[in-house]
Amino acid sequence: MTSTWEDFFAKHPPPQDLNQTENLLKTFIEKHLKENNKVVLITSGGTMIPLEHNTVRFVDNFSAGSRGATSAEYFLEHKYAVIFMYRLKSLEPFTRHFIGHKVLDMLNLTEEADKCTVTVVPEHTEKVAMVLRKYKKTMKQDKLIQISFSSLTEYLWLLRTVCQALACLKDKALLYLAAAVSDFYVPFDEMSEHKIPSSGPPTISLQLVPKMLEPLVSLWVPEAFVISFKLETDENVLVSKARTALNKYKHNLVIANMLQTRKQQVIIVSKENDYVLSLTNEQMKNGEEIEKFIVDDIVLKHKDFSKLRSSNSTYRFISIT
Amino acid sequence: MTSTWEDFFAKHPPPQDLNQTENLLKTFIEKHLKENNKVVLITSGGTMIPLEHNTVRFVDNFSAGSRGATSAEYFLEHKYAVIFMYRLKSLEPFTRHFIGHKVLDMLNLTEEADKCTVTVVPEHTEKVAMVLRKYKKTMKQDKLIQISFSSLTEYLWLLRTVCQALACLKDKALLYLAAAVSDFYVPFDEMSEHKIPSSGPPTISLQLVPKMLEPLVSLWVPEAFVISFKLETDENVLVSKARTALNKYKHNLVIANMLQTRKQQVIIVSKENDYVLSLTNEQMKNGEEIEKFIVDDIVLKHKDFSKLRSSNSTYRFISIT
Repeated sequence: MTSTWEDFFAKHPPPQDLNQTENLLKTFIEKHLKENNKVVLITSGGTMIPLEHNTVRFVDNFSAGSRGATSAEYFLEHKYAVIFMYRLKSLEPFTRHFIGHKVLDMLNLTEEADKCTVTVVPEHTEKVAMVLRKYKKTMKQDKLIQISFSSLTEYLWLLRTVCQALACLKDKALLYLAAAVSDFYVPFDEMSEHKIPSSGPPTISLQLVPKMLEPLVSLWVPEAFVISFKLETDENVLVSKARTALNKYKHNLVIANMLQTRKQQVIIVSKENDYVLSLTNEQMKNGEEIEKFIVDDIVLKHKDFSKLRSSNSTYRFISIT
Repeated sequence: MTSTWEDFFAKHPPPQDLNQTENLLKTFIEKHLKENNKVVLITSGGTMIPLEHNTVRFVDNFSAGSRGATSAEYFLEHKYAVIFMYRLKSLEPFTRHFIGHKVLDMLNLTEEADKCTVTVVPEHTEKVAMVLRKYKKTMKQDKLIQISFSSLTEYLWLLRTVCQALACLKDKALLYLAAAVSDFYVPFDEMSEHKIPSSGPPTISLQLVPKMLEPLVSLWVPEAFVISFKLETDENVLVSKARTALNKYKHNLVIANMLQTRKQQVIIVSKENDYVLSLTNEQMKNGEEIEKFIVDDIVLKHKDFSKLRSSNSTYRFISIT
């Protein structure tokens, strides 16, 4: 049984600090509306589904958040302002470059008399400096805010809140919904209060999550450019599923990818056509990132979309007078 | 239905790099056996249960890994060598102090002529230097190795492997099993090959994981000092459950804690008695850590255990001759 999206919001209380987030968003979006900047919402990472109110166990979706964190940096290079809505502890723009390194192995300690200095070792200085430069520029220009979520419920509340705040930007808003959102959940009123005893019959009954893309496209940000992602492990169903989603929700683009090859290849699926973007093995070896090519492609499409909308509205205006 | 532990290992293939890990462990343990050091295995973080072979979805256990990562540092202060077996991306000793800080906000960039230096900002230097000093000493003395796992299967294979390597240390080995190990799993041969379609009936049938503490205590490390953890959200069942585990598996200690208060209070449960260790609100405010008191307590118990064992074996020796 699937409940409606209205039911979902009626039944599941919002995150406690939603007001604060709303204020943060309002200031950010007003600034960029005034400066005539495009703003992209990037969602990133997986959502967790608590199985108990006092959560010990949860169902989760595999996602490190690479796609979202990497894309954020490329959107910033294209002068977009970025709202980065990410799963707590998943990858973040800029800091993502240092994951896997032992940060402490990158530091040197010099103690002289009563002065102690900690410096990045020469071997890593260039890379750290490059990232640090871009990071500081972004923060100085106030081009990035980060909002974190953990559970599906938090994600959905935040998604609606950000959309409502973005609506005033009209076609200047881009939605890049890369988060791995669970299709299933345990409704609030069916959750066990305490840790499920390990002696009990361990069967978990999940329900389908209402599809939020529907109200998002038709009601929350009807004038924005909206991109969703489709991840599959079976190649035979990939493009057909992407196309089904596109027909159903009437948004602008689906980026389809296979779990196994997602860092090398994606398929861009629109109403008009679908085509592959991919990196050669040589490019992979050189550390190039497919997100650069995805974002380049989308930025052009977003421009065309805005042009078309403004020419349409001009046309309509002329025909009315 | 619960299968036996033998069944589990027969059915579930080992992690691919298990040989490498075995070699790493062998070298580490030989060194510390020779130097007459005590060695503690700390397990830390949650285990994930894949729901599909090409894993997109999984069931997980809530655990940041604070207990394990923090305790590791205190065991090192007591001169133990530490095998830190942790869930990938959960907290690690030393680096745990910098989680939550934006690492990039802690760095300053100085560019002079063609020389570029990255330095930790003065405000954070003292804290970073203190941690860095301890970290570098630990690594220089080769006192810490870290082994990561993600899935329950990886965890169990690694646990057995480490135990088998530790057995030669006899009572000098301490097992501090703080990981949040799932009680449930989906057996390898019942897992879906591809992503479970979101149209299907979303019911997940889990089976009980065989209790590995049983062979661990009786077969793998029969002479070691073994401590397990019990986390509950319902206070009424906490100590009784801890005691049941102790009677069943015949190991040395259970550390019982409530999800809600685990950073302030634990109950140490042994065959003889149980008592509370806790921090005052004042101590909490000052940033003291309950793991210091837990580890202090355990180190004493481990000493007594070794004394008792060696006096028993002398006694046995005398009575035989």
